[in-house]
Amino acid sequence: MHKRIAVYPGSFDPVTNGHLDIMIRALRTFDRVIVAVARNSEKSSLFTINERIEMIRKVMAHEERLQVDSFEGLLVDYVISQNAETILRGLRAVSDFEYEFQLAQMNHTVKPQVETLFMITAVPYGYLSSSIVKEVASYRGNIDAFVPPLVKEALEAKFGKHSEDNI
Amino acid sequence: MHKRIAVYPGSFDPVTNGHLDIMIRALRTFDRVIVAVARNSEKSSLFTINERIEMIRKVMAHEERLQVDSFEGLLVDYVISQNAETILRGLRAVSDFEYEFQLAQMNHTVKPQVETLFMITAVPYGYLSSSIVKEVASYRGNIDAFVPPLVKEALEAKFGKHSEDNI
Amino acid sequence: MHKRIAVYPGSFDPVTNGHLDIMIRALRTFDRVIVAVARNSEKSSLFTINERIEMIRKVMAHEERLQVDSFEGLLVDYVISQNAETILRGLRAVSDFEYEFQLAQMNHTVKPQVETLFMITAVPYGYLSSSIVKEVASYRGNIDAFVPPLVKEALEAKFGKHSEDNI
Amino acid sequence: MHKRIAVYPGSFDPVTNGHLDIMIRALRTFDRVIVAVARNSEKSSLFTINERIEMIRKVMAHEERLQVDSFEGLLVDYVISQNAETILRGLRAVSDFEYEFQLAQMNHTVKPQVETLFMITAVPYGYLSSSIVKEVASYRGNIDAFVPPLVKEALEAKFGKHSEDNI
Amino acid sequence: MHKRIAVYPGSFDPVTNGHLDIMIRALRTFDRVIVAVARNSEKSSLFTINERIEMIRKVMAHEERLQVDSFEGLLVDYVISQNAETILRGLRAVSDFEYEFQLAQMNHTVKPQVETLFMITAVPYGYLSSSIVKEVASYRGNIDAFVPPLVKEALEAKFGKHSEDNI
Amino acid sequence: MHKRIAVYPGSFDPVTNGHLDIMIRALRTFDRVIVAVARNSEKSSLFTINERIEMIRKVMAHEERLQVDSFEGLLVDYVISQNAETILRGLRAVSDFEYEFQLAQMNHTVKPQVETLFMITAVPYGYLSSSIVKEVASYRGNIDAFVPPLVKEALEAKFGKHSEDNI
Repeated sequence: MHKRIAVYPGSFDPVTNGHLDIMIRALRTFDRVIVAVARNSEKSSLFTINERIEMIRKVMAHEERLQVDSFEGLLVDYVISQNAETILRGLRAVSDFEYEFQLAQMNHTVKPQVETLFMITAVPYGYLSSSIVKEVASYRGNIDAFVPPLVKEALEAKFGKHSEDNI
Repeated sequence: MHKRIAVYPGSFDPVTNGHLDIMIRALRTFDRVIVAVARNSEKSSLFTINERIEMIRKVMAHEERLQVDSFEGLLVDYVISQNAETILRGLRAVSDFEYEFQLAQMNHTVKPQVETLFMITAVPYGYLSSSIVKEVASYRGNIDAFVPPLVKEALEAKFGKHSEDNI
Repeated sequence: MHKRIAVYPGSFDPVTNGHLDIMIRALRTFDRVIVAVARNSEKSSLFTINERIEMIRKVMAHEERLQVDSFEGLLVDYVISQNAETILRGLRAVSDFEYEFQLAQMNHTVKPQVETLFMITAVPYGYLSSSIVKEVASYRGNIDAFVPPLVKEALEAKFGKHSEDNI
Repeated sequence: MHKRIAVYPGSFDPVTNGHLDIMIRALRTFDRVIVAVARNSEKSSLFTINERIEMIRKVMAHEERLQVDSFEGLLVDYVISQNAETILRGLRAVSDFEYEFQLAQMNHTVKPQVETLFMITAVPYGYLSSSIVKEVASYRGNIDAFVPPLVKEALEAKFGKHSEDNI
Repeated sequence: MHKRIAVYPGSFDPVTNGHLDIMIRALRTFDRVIVAVARNSEKSSLFTINERIEMIRKVMAHEERLQVDSFEGLLVDYVISQNAETILRGLRAVSDFEYEFQLAQMNHTVKPQVETLFMITAVPYGYLSSSIVKEVASYRGNIDAFVPPLVKEALEAKFGKHSEDNI
Repeated sequence: MHKRIAVYPGSFDPVTNGHLDIMIRALRTFDRVIVAVARNSEKSSLFTINERIEMIRKVMAHEERLQVDSFEGLLVDYVISQNAETILRGLRAVSDFEYEFQLAQMNHTVKPQVETLFMITAVPYGYLSSSIVKEVASYRGNIDAFVPPLVKEALEAKFGKHSEDNI
C-alpha cells in the first residue's frame, strides 16, 4: 500500500477560505497534499510567488502532511516529477466545470497515468474567488468572511485598511 | 497510514464501458473500491439488482480490490457502515454536474465526514448512459462499442439479437 | 404610490428553509407577498394542498403582510385576479434558470403587464429542494438543517422518526 | 452534384411556430426536407401520429420539397433508409444542447456516415415548446402567437375554446 | 409604506434597447429607478462616463422617476448611500447567470440588507450586448434594431456612417 | 438545384485536428466549403494570417472543393460576397454554445438570408482548442494527438522541439 499524494494547483493570488477548505478536506483523503502555486500566472498577479507561498505556509503551518511549492510548465510533468498520481481541483460552478473538463481531458491525453479528481467547494465558499476578494479589498470593503486574518492584513497593506464606518 | 476506501454508487442498469473505465481508474487512486448498486432504483429497471451485481462481478472478476454490493436508504449511511470515507462519482456533462453538486452538498450537510470526489468520464464515453444503451439495444442497434460482451448478450436476451444487416 | 404585491408560486411539498428565506426577503421589497400553492401539482404530492398551506401559514403566522393561498390554471391569470403585477421566483442553479427563463418569457408573451422577478437562493439553501428533503426523510435521515420543526414533525408523521443512532 | 436531403425528426405533439420556422429555413439549405414524426413517442402523446402528420402536411402543403413521414426504431437507420445523410435538429437552450450532444455523438458512433446539423431556434420562438403550448391551451390561455390557426383549432377541440374575456 | 428604490448598475457603453427595456419595466415595479454607470469600467470604454450618462438621460428624459448617476467603489456601498435597498440586474443567458450569482452572493455577505433582484431580458434583446453592438458598428453594419437613434448617431460619429449599400 | 456553399470561419491559430474533422465532414454536406480566417484576430495571434492560411491549404491540398481565404469586417457581409448562404460552426461545449447562440441571433437579425448551421465536434476532439495546443507546445509537451505533423513542426519552430525524455 503506497502513499497517496495529491497535487492541488492554482494561482492562490491570494489564498481564500475556499482554497483552505479544499486543502483541509484533501488531507482526509490523501496521505500527502502538495499545494502548487503556478509560476505562469505571475505577470498580472497582485502578490509575488513567494508572498503567495508564504501566506499558505503560515496559515497551514500546523498541517505536517501539506507542502507548498511552485511550478512552471505543464502541470502533468510537475505531478510526475513529485511522484504524485493525482491532480486535485475545486469546482464552484458550471463555468468552472467546463474549463476544468477540457483541462482534465487534455492532461489525460498527454499523461494517462495522472488522474484528476474534483471536490465541490463547500457551500459557504461557493461564490468566493481570489479576484472578487481583491476587488472588494481594493474598495476597502469588509473581507473578514473570505480570507484568514494574515491574508486580510496583506491585502490591507496593498490597498489600505477597511474603515469601521464602512461596515 | 490507513486504507483508502471509495464507494462508487449507481444504478448500473446495465453497467457500461463508461462505468468500467471509472472503476479501473478508481483502483489507481484508492486501496479498495466498493461498487454500490442502488436498491431504490429497482422498480423501473430493466435488470434485477442481482443481475446487475452479477454482470459487474463477472466483468471485473480479476480486480481483487474491487467489491460489488447493493445498498438501500441514505448513501452516506451506507458509506459509513462500510468504514469508507469517500463517495466517487463520474461526471459527464453540465446537467450531471448540477444534480451531483446538490447531492454532494446535501450529503456533506448530513454527514460532513464523508467526502465526495468526482472523476470526469473519459473522452470516448462522455456521451454514454445506460438509458441510451438500452434504447439502442431495444431497436437492435449495434452496441459493441458501449458495453462489454457479457452485457451485450444480456441485452440481446431481453431485446433480441442485433442482425448483421443492421450494421 | 400604490401597493407593490408579489405572488410567490410553487408546490411547497413541503416548504423548506430555502422557501422561507425567499419569503422573508420578499417582504423587505414588496408591500404584500402572496404565497400561491399550485393545485396542479397535487396528484403526485406527499402532502395535500391544505396541509401545505397550513404548514406555511403556521410558520409565517407572525408576518401580517404575507398571505397563503392556492391557485389553479394559468399563473398569470391568478396574478391579475389578485391585483398583483409581479411573480417572484427563487433561483438555485443553472437548470432552474433555463426552465424559469422559458416560463417567464411565455408568461410575458401571454400577459405583458405581469413582470417576473428572481431572487437567488441564499448560500446555505442553494442545494435544498423539497424532493431531496423528502428523500432524506424517507430514509429517516436528519433534516434539522433543512426545514422548520413543524415541517419536520409532519415528515416524521409520514415516514417515521429519525433515530438518534442515525446521526 | 447530388440532392441534399435532411431528416428533421421530432414528436411534433403538436407542431409549433418554432418547428415551422426551422422547416422553412431548412428548405433554403437542403434540396429536400423529410419531417419525421417519432412513433416511439405515441403512448403519452395528446395527438395520434396521424393527427400530428396531417397537421404538418396541411400547414406546409405549399412546400413541394418538404415531405412528412413517421418512423420507428433507431433514427440513423431511418435516415439511411431514406437515402438522406443529414439529421437536422433545432436548438433552443443549454439543456437542449446537452441532450442533443449526447444523441449526436451516439448516432455518430453507430453510423458515422450520418451527420447531425443544428439550427438555433429563431429569437421569438426560443422559449416555445409543445408541452408549454399544451399547458397554456389546457387552461384555455391565448396561444395565437405560438401555433398556426389549424393547430389552435385542434387544441381547442381537445381542451375547449379560449374565451375572449380571458385575453 | 415607504418608497421602493432600485439601483440598476452597468457599464452602458453604450446603452442598448435591451437595457432600455429593463429600465422601462423596472419603473412598473419600483417607485424610483437609479441607473448607475460604473466609473471602474472607464479605462477600456468607448464612451466617457459623461457621454454614457448623457445618452441615457436624453433617451429616458420623459421618465421622471428615473435618475441617471455614476458610482465608484463597492456597489453595495453606493446602494446604501442612495437609501435604496434593491439592486436590479438583467439576465440574458446562463453565462450571465453564473457571474451574477457570484456577485449577488458576495454582495449579500457584505451587506445583507441589500437585495438583488433579476429580470430576464425580453425575447428580442436576449442576444444583445454593448460589445456586440460596438463590433457591428465598427464594421459599419446596420444597428437600427439594437440601439435608439441617438446612440446610433454617437456610434457613427466614432466609427463612420453605415452606407445604405451595406444593408 | 444550385450549389450549396458553406463558410467555416475562425482564427485557426493554428488549425487543429478538431477543425480538420469539421472541414472533412462539411464537405460531405456542402458542395463547396470556404475556410475563412478572420483578419480581426491577427493582433494577439501566434501565426500571421498568411501562415495560418498556408497551413490549412497544405493539409487540405487534396480537397478540391475546399477553399481557404481570409476576411475582415462583418462575417455576414463576407458570406454574401461569396454567394454563400450558410455559416458553419463547430460546437464543443456549453460555453461555446452561448457565445455562438448570441452571434447566430445577431447575424440572423442583420442578414436574415444567411443561415448558421452547427456541427458538434467529434468525440476525440471535444476538449481541443488552439489556445490549449499552444500552451502545451510552449512547454514542449507532446502534441502529436492534437495537430497534423506540418502544424506540429510550425509550433516547434516557434517554441522549440518536444524532447523524447518528456513523453
